[in-house]
Amino acid sequence: MAAAKGPATAKRGAVTVPYARKNPCAGEFMHIDAVDWQVMPEPFCINGIRWKLLHTSPELGAWTAIYDCPAGSWFNAHVHLGPGEYLLTKGRMDVRGGSLEGGDTAYAVGYGYEPANARHDKTFFPIASEFYMTFIGPLHFLDDQDKTVAVVGWKEVQAMWLQQNGVE
Amino acid sequence: MAAAKGPATAKRGAVTVPYARKNPCAGEFMHIDAVDWQVMPEPFCINGIRWKLLHTSPELGAWTAIYDCPAGSWFNAHVHLGPGEYLLTKGRMDVRGGSLEGGDTAYAVGYGYEPANARHDKTFFPIASEFYMTFIGPLHFLDDQDKTVAVVGWKEVQAMWLQQNGVE
Amino acid sequence: MAAAKGPATAKRGAVTVPYARKNPCAGEFMHIDAVDWQVMPEPFCINGIRWKLLHTSPELGAWTAIYDCPAGSWFNAHVHLGPGEYLLTKGRMDVRGGSLEGGDTAYAVGYGYEPANARHDKTFFPIASEFYMTFIGPLHFLDDQDKTVAVVGWKEVQAMWLQQNGVE
Amino acid sequence: MAAAKGPATAKRGAVTVPYARKNPCAGEFMHIDAVDWQVMPEPFCINGIRWKLLHTSPELGAWTAIYDCPAGSWFNAHVHLGPGEYLLTKGRMDVRGGSLEGGDTAYAVGYGYEPANARHDKTFFPIASEFYMTFIGPLHFLDDQDKTVAVVGWKEVQAMWLQQNGVE
Repeated sequence: MAAAKGPATAKRGAVTVPYARKNPCAGEFMHIDAVDWQVMPEPFCINGIRWKLLHTSPELGAWTAIYDCPAGSWFNAHVHLGPGEYLLTKGRMDVRGGSLEGGDTAYAVGYGYEPANARHDKTFFPIASEFYMTFIGPLHFLDDQDKTVAVVGWKEVQAMWLQQNGVE
Repeated sequence: MAAAKGPATAKRGAVTVPYARKNPCAGEFMHIDAVDWQVMPEPFCINGIRWKLLHTSPELGAWTAIYDCPAGSWFNAHVHLGPGEYLLTKGRMDVRGGSLEGGDTAYAVGYGYEPANARHDKTFFPIASEFYMTFIGPLHFLDDQDKTVAVVGWKEVQAMWLQQNGVE
Repeated sequence: MAAAKGPATAKRGAVTVPYARKNPCAGEFMHIDAVDWQVMPEPFCINGIRWKLLHTSPELGAWTAIYDCPAGSWFNAHVHLGPGEYLLTKGRMDVRGGSLEGGDTAYAVGYGYEPANARHDKTFFPIASEFYMTFIGPLHFLDDQDKTVAVVGWKEVQAMWLQQNGVE
Repeated sequence: MAAAKGPATAKRGAVTVPYARKNPCAGEFMHIDAVDWQVMPEPFCINGIRWKLLHTSPELGAWTAIYDCPAGSWFNAHVHLGPGEYLLTKGRMDVRGGSLEGGDTAYAVGYGYEPANARHDKTFFPIASEFYMTFIGPLHFLDDQDKTVAVVGWKEVQAMWLQQNGVE
């Protein structure tokens, strides 16, 4: 018989009641100014985009962050492996070339939905911009031969954030 | 300033790095025969449906169970508040009146998808049947005036399962 | 044999290939000022909260909205049936009594996570406030005897929004 | 102002009501014997594993399949980018080396949960086995230098399944 494992196992006599006593998740609140901006490293973007990690959800693989994007900065090519939603609170964002080239040009204050499998070859910020984004699943960063640079999900962003803040 | 709370808070000097050190979820395995069937109580079904709770996911509000349904048993009216998927491993299930009345008649071995907001006025088992089902979100059980009987999600099924197994 | 149904069915000779040709979801962008505020009706809140519906996700049962909350307004008692995340862009929000009574007091600009099953007896705005929120699953509104007032998910908010905008 | 796009846009006078008229997803039912097994190609597994694609969910990036695994077959190294749940209906599956090497050995009939980020270097079937599995998000297949072989999600499995069935 297969062994039950993990912290949630409960037993009654000889009967295994595995995994049944899970706890609800805790609520969270974070004052955004209380946390310093960190620089997002170059494999992912160009010209000094900074970020704050606001939340990770290990079970679903979801995560939430806010980005500060100087004029002329951009994110390198990536595919959203699950859906993402953003609130552009400041500035302008050219997605998939912007509306002149068939993509979207987002003006603040604006809401956007990027579906699972959306590919963004270059997400460009012509003026200083800021946006908040919730992600389900990782981003798949690609180089210019479409080779994998990195698959970056809740676990990788958490590790990067903790390292940047001198924790762990 | 709002206080950070919960077990996942990390600090670096005066800077709060809230909620950033989450652990991955644990894997689970459960030999299904190692767990006893429990009777599903009457508000939810008629004629002796039994169940085993296999998994709960508190973060997404998902859960997984297997049901043993004698000939002539049924589930009472309910709405799926999120999507559900089932594998009918034995028997036959008339969903939404069955195919004679515009619904589906599922024969084993069969796969079914019930979308968010699917309403099942009576899910009927004309012969002895068994099915495995994964749920995202709760079920909303209704009486014959469409009043709420119960909203039953991961937390409520876990509490019922633990109580039925003499735990907690 | 069970009949295939729905728009995604494909056939090859005698072999059914059901449901396999699904389309990716479309991206969305919405300039928030281009849409008028609508009044959120009284069963759900008090003192003139207004809203804009930004997105619905029928498959997962997710949805996204932004709320404008005058000083002294509040949401009535409700349970989040799935997780929700918010960005408080302006003002102050007392959740579960606020920090003086064991809950959270959110100050702008702040991020919050409300887990599945979070119960909010009264979410109060002592000053003029605005917040953006993503929801997975419905809200379960309760009266003061804990009876169901309404279960409000993507489908219900879409119907209310379209009705308020004179569409459909 | 940013242009609204996509099929779900509605208008009322000069006011845009974007994306608000989404349709509920359709229910599905599929008699599993009505569909032929297809061979899963070699980059993903060894020794003749066959599969049937049962469902795709483009919005969440979820998908569901059933696998027929001859004695001595295995899946190559992969990481689950989101959670997966399986029902092992026949046989035995050694996950992460099996229980002798610190992993799980699943015996039929058994239920398993593999969390987001679970890495399976070799999932081995010592005897003829069959399992049904629901996935949220893609699988990331790796070679023996941990380089990406492929990221395989709902869209890629759908394309492979349609091609194998002579559709599209």
